[in-house]
Amino acid sequence: MAFSPLVEELITALRCLPGVGPKSAQRMALHLLEREREGGFRLAEILERALEHVGQCQECRTLTEEPVCSLCRSERCNSELLCVVETPADQIAMEQAGGFDGRYFVLTGHLSPIDGIGPDALGLDHLEAKVRRDLVKEVILATNPTVEGEATAHYISEMLQHLPVTVTRLAHGIPVGGELEYIDGGTLSRAMAGRLPMAK
Amino acid sequence: MAFSPLVEELITALRCLPGVGPKSAQRMALHLLEREREGGFRLAEILERALEHVGQCQECRTLTEEPVCSLCRSERCNSELLCVVETPADQIAMEQAGGFDGRYFVLTGHLSPIDGIGPDALGLDHLEAKVRRDLVKEVILATNPTVEGEATAHYISEMLQHLPVTVTRLAHGIPVGGELEYIDGGTLSRAMAGRLPMAK
Repeated sequence: MAFSPLVEELITALRCLPGVGPKSAQRMALHLLEREREGGFRLAEILERALEHVGQCQECRTLTEEPVCSLCRSERCNSELLCVVETPADQIAMEQAGGFDGRYFVLTGHLSPIDGIGPDALGLDHLEAKVRRDLVKEVILATNPTVEGEATAHYISEMLQHLPVTVTRLAHGIPVGGELEYIDGGTLSRAMAGRLPMAK
Repeated sequence: MAFSPLVEELITALRCLPGVGPKSAQRMALHLLEREREGGFRLAEILERALEHVGQCQECRTLTEEPVCSLCRSERCNSELLCVVETPADQIAMEQAGGFDGRYFVLTGHLSPIDGIGPDALGLDHLEAKVRRDLVKEVILATNPTVEGEATAHYISEMLQHLPVTVTRLAHGIPVGGELEYIDGGTLSRAMAGRLPMAK
């Protein structure tokens, strides 16, 4: 005994969403069918439209339905600064934090040979060409502070070594508003090693 | 600064799923666009098809794409027994537990005057007509053991009072495999009140 075939198919299809297991998928399917048909139709329609039209920005590889994203088209950006991030979500987080007026390059992932993700998949040839063409002065590596993110940062840094460009990495240290007592040892020792003179 | 308009629209549309907040919706949208386009297209297609074709069974009101669901059509069911549940998921749970060979009636909710859900929304007139027509001998009320579920069970019990039908309620007691120490007082006192002679 199970749900009717079409309902079962919907439950299976919902499993493609990240973090959705059998029980959540069932709950979602029944919710949509019992109580949220209008929202469901809208979701189906927008999902199809987005999948058809959203591609990557030709300049920075972020997700956009236009050939070049609004940030890459904007005048306010300083094209001599280029911040390399792993995902479009990281790019948004950096933008929302403020304090950076340069451009971005979105890798859409990190190097992970075990998953078959090499330099090509991250568009690193494109990154190198962009650095040359736009006469970029500084590349800021803002990949995640994970093993894969660090490895990706090192790879890019080596790749750009022969070009007249400064390569920097986001600072490691204690998070603003954090409590020393609860910060892990790795972060604390990096914060100690990277200590700066007190601002006057 | 935000995602491109179409990506933002997709994030908003995903919020109609239960338990999905802004961060999960963003994660789902990016996952679908970056890594799961095929699954996304399949989801959009099946979602639309299910919303168009899945309706309620004319007999038991469960979700099905056919006029009458497979359970109501099946021969094995004893039409003298009718089990009333709140949702299609409850019906599946009862069926998977086994031990019941009668038919079901799915309320698709419980009485909740504050949300405007009255007897009509639960198809209670349909339930009464079905009990009469099928010459049902016993109606088993399997609504949830919550305040609303109990209230719904009482309402249905009163409604059927004048008919020649036995109305029963699922037994309350300690769950099989549970540890007494961790069972709440309400359940324990119901288990004590409902104690049965030891099977020999």
